[in-house]
Amino acid sequence: MIVLTGELILEFLKNLENHLRNLREELDISQVEELITSINSSKNIFIMGAGRSGFVAKAFAMRLMHLGYSVYVVGETVTPKIKKDDLLIAISGSGETSSVINVAMKAKSMVGSKVAALTSNKNSSLARLSDVVVTLKGKVKTEKDEKISKLAPLGTMFELTSLIFLDALVAELLNMKGLDEEDLKERHAILE
Amino acid sequence: MIVLTGELILEFLKNLENHLRNLREELDISQVEELITSINSSKNIFIMGAGRSGFVAKAFAMRLMHLGYSVYVVGETVTPKIKKDDLLIAISGSGETSSVINVAMKAKSMVGSKVAALTSNKNSSLARLSDVVVTLKGKVKTEKDEKISKLAPLGTMFELTSLIFLDALVAELLNMKGLDEEDLKERHAILE
Amino acid sequence: MIVLTGELILEFLKNLENHLRNLREELDISQVEELITSINSSKNIFIMGAGRSGFVAKAFAMRLMHLGYSVYVVGETVTPKIKKDDLLIAISGSGETSSVINVAMKAKSMVGSKVAALTSNKNSSLARLSDVVVTLKGKVKTEKDEKISKLAPLGTMFELTSLIFLDALVAELLNMKGLDEEDLKERHAILE
Amino acid sequence: MIVLTGELILEFLKNLENHLRNLREELDISQVEELITSINSSKNIFIMGAGRSGFVAKAFAMRLMHLGYSVYVVGETVTPKIKKDDLLIAISGSGETSSVINVAMKAKSMVGSKVAALTSNKNSSLARLSDVVVTLKGKVKTEKDEKISKLAPLGTMFELTSLIFLDALVAELLNMKGLDEEDLKERHAILE
Repeated sequence: MIVLTGELILEFLKNLENHLRNLREELDISQVEELITSINSSKNIFIMGAGRSGFVAKAFAMRLMHLGYSVYVVGETVTPKIKKDDLLIAISGSGETSSVINVAMKAKSMVGSKVAALTSNKNSSLARLSDVVVTLKGKVKTEKDEKISKLAPLGTMFELTSLIFLDALVAELLNMKGLDEEDLKERHAILE
Repeated sequence: MIVLTGELILEFLKNLENHLRNLREELDISQVEELITSINSSKNIFIMGAGRSGFVAKAFAMRLMHLGYSVYVVGETVTPKIKKDDLLIAISGSGETSSVINVAMKAKSMVGSKVAALTSNKNSSLARLSDVVVTLKGKVKTEKDEKISKLAPLGTMFELTSLIFLDALVAELLNMKGLDEEDLKERHAILE
Repeated sequence: MIVLTGELILEFLKNLENHLRNLREELDISQVEELITSINSSKNIFIMGAGRSGFVAKAFAMRLMHLGYSVYVVGETVTPKIKKDDLLIAISGSGETSSVINVAMKAKSMVGSKVAALTSNKNSSLARLSDVVVTLKGKVKTEKDEKISKLAPLGTMFELTSLIFLDALVAELLNMKGLDEEDLKERHAILE
Repeated sequence: MIVLTGELILEFLKNLENHLRNLREELDISQVEELITSINSSKNIFIMGAGRSGFVAKAFAMRLMHLGYSVYVVGETVTPKIKKDDLLIAISGSGETSSVINVAMKAKSMVGSKVAALTSNKNSSLARLSDVVVTLKGKVKTEKDEKISKLAPLGTMFELTSLIFLDALVAELLNMKGLDEEDLKERHAILE
C-alpha cells in the first residue's frame, strides 16, 4: 500500500483552474459566433479528431445528437458521404495531425464542404485550410515546458480545454434552441 | 521460412462451399420475408452483436445506410433512443450472449420496439423473446465437433454465414428498391 | 449571423472552476490511494463506461497504455478474457448503468477479478459490488436542479470531473514511475 | 407483407460458391507462406482497413488475439506506437484507399516496419509499397459489371473473400501452433 499525499493531484487541479480563468478572459467570442452559425446553418455535421481528441470529438457529437442535430463521427459505421451543405468540425491541438488534415482537405476539395477547426495553433495546416477557426490555448504536443509536461503531458491541457469549451457551447446551443434537459433525455440512448 | 501445403485452407474453403449449399437448400424464405417486411416498415433500424458478430452487424448496418435506411449501431456515438416504431436486429449464434439479450429485453420492455434475431439457435433466449427469427445453421460456440472445431473454431461458421446471408439480403433490398450501385456510391463515405 | 454575448459560456466556466475547488477540498485521498494500489498490483487493467463516460474511460485507458500498463477497453477488438489477477475499472456517474453493472458483476462472479468504481453515488449498485470506490461529486443524471440542468445537462459535470480527476491521477502515476513526457511519446501511436 | 421468391439470395449464394471455387484454384500459396512467415516473425501485429474492410480487419485481429499473438487495430484506444520489428497488415480491395495508403507509408517511412497487403489489385499503390502482397480476386470498387454490381455491389465480393480467406488462414495458424478450440476460449473475452 502506497502513502499518497495527493499533492500532484491538487497541483493539477489548481493549474487547471488557472487555465480556465485564462480561457474565460481570452476566448474570442466572435470565433464562437462563427462556429455556432456554421453549426446551425449546415445540413449535417461531421466531427473528427485523432487519439484523445477523437474522444472529445465523440463526446461533443453525442451531445449534438441529444440536441437534435444531424451529426456523424468520421469513421463510424453509419456515417454517409459528406456533401456541400455539410460542416466538418476537426479537433487537433497541434493542427498538424496528418489523418485529420487529410480528411479536412478531402472534405474541402472533393465536395466543398465547410470546415471548422478547434485547435491551439492558429497558424497550423489545419487552421489555414479551415473556414472557421476557434483557438484554445493549451500546451500542444510540440511545445516544451518542464513543469507542465510532468503535470499535464502531451495534449492533456488541450484535450481537457476543448471538452470543457464544447460542453460550454452545448449550454449556449441548449438555450438558443429553447430546449431543456428533458428534451435531451428524449433522445439519449437507452440501449447501451 | 515455412513450407505451406495450404491443405487446411483448401479444406476450409470446400467446407464452406458445402455449408453454403446447405444454406441454399434449408433457408426458410418465409423467415426472410418477415425480416424484410420488418426492415421496410420500421422508422429506424438498430443493429447489434457482440464480438465478431458485432463486426457482421456493423458491415450490414453500413450497407443499410448505403441503401438509404435510417440505421444505427447500438453503442456508437450518434445512436439515439430507440422508439416503439423502430426495429432492433440482434445477431448472436448461440442466442445466449448476455449483453445482446439484455439489450433486446430492454428494447421490448422499455419501449415496445420490434426485435428480429439472427441466430443458429431457434430455442435460445434471444430467439424466444424476438418477434422475427431467422435461423442460420453454423456450428455455434457451445457445440462440439472435433474436426470442424479445428477448421472453423468457435463461432466462425455462424459469423461467416450471417455476413454472407446479410449480403445476399442486400441484393434483394437493392432490387426491391430499384436502386443500383451508383445510388450506393452516392451515400458511401468519402472521409475514411 | 447570431450575436453572441457568450454569457452562458462564461457562467459554465465559472461554475466548473467552483466545482474543481470543491473537488480539491473534498477528494478522499485514501480512496485514491486504494485505486492506485489496485492499478499497480494488477496484471492487466480493463476499463469500461457507457456513453460519454465511455469516452472518459477510453481517454484514461490510452494514457495508462502510454504509461506502460497492460490495459484494455471492454468491448474493443483485442481485449482478452479478464482473469483473477486483473482489475476492472468501471465509470458510471449514477452507478446504475445496467450494462456497466452487468459487466462488473460478471468480472466478480465468473473470475473473481477486482473491481474499482468511479462514481458520484457511493450507495449505487455499482459502488456496492466494487472493491474500491472513488466518489466524485457531479450532478448525476437522476438529480434535478433547474439552473445546473440548463448549464450542464445530464451527466456533464460527472463526465468532466472524472476526466479531469483521471488526468490528475496520471500526473501522480507518471511521477511515481519516474517517467517523463518522452517516455509517453515513445508509446504514443503514430499511425492514427 | 411482401412475397419473396428468394431468387436473388440463391443466385448470390451460387455466385459466391463459384467465387470460392476459383479462390481455391487460383490462390498463390507462396504469397500465403510469406504472410504467415511475417506474422510469426513479428513482435507485434497491427491491422487496418477502412469501411467494411475495416470490420474484416477487426474480425481477423480478434482471432489473432485468441491465438495468442500480440495484435492491435490501428485507431483503437490501446494501440501503441508501431516499431521496426512489427508488421502492419493493411486490407483494401482497390489498394487505393487513401487513409490506408497514408498509414502504410507512415509505417514504412517513419519506423521501417514490414507491411503486408491484402488486396484485389496487385498493381495498386498499396501493393507496390508493401513487402508482402496476397491478392484475392473480387470485383473491386472501381470495376464495372452490370450483373455482379446488382448482386454484390461495391466491395462486397472482396470483403467476403478476404474474411473467408483470413478465417482459412486461422485454421492453418491454429494447426501450426498445435492449439485447439479450448485454447482460443481461454483468451476469448467474457466481458462483452
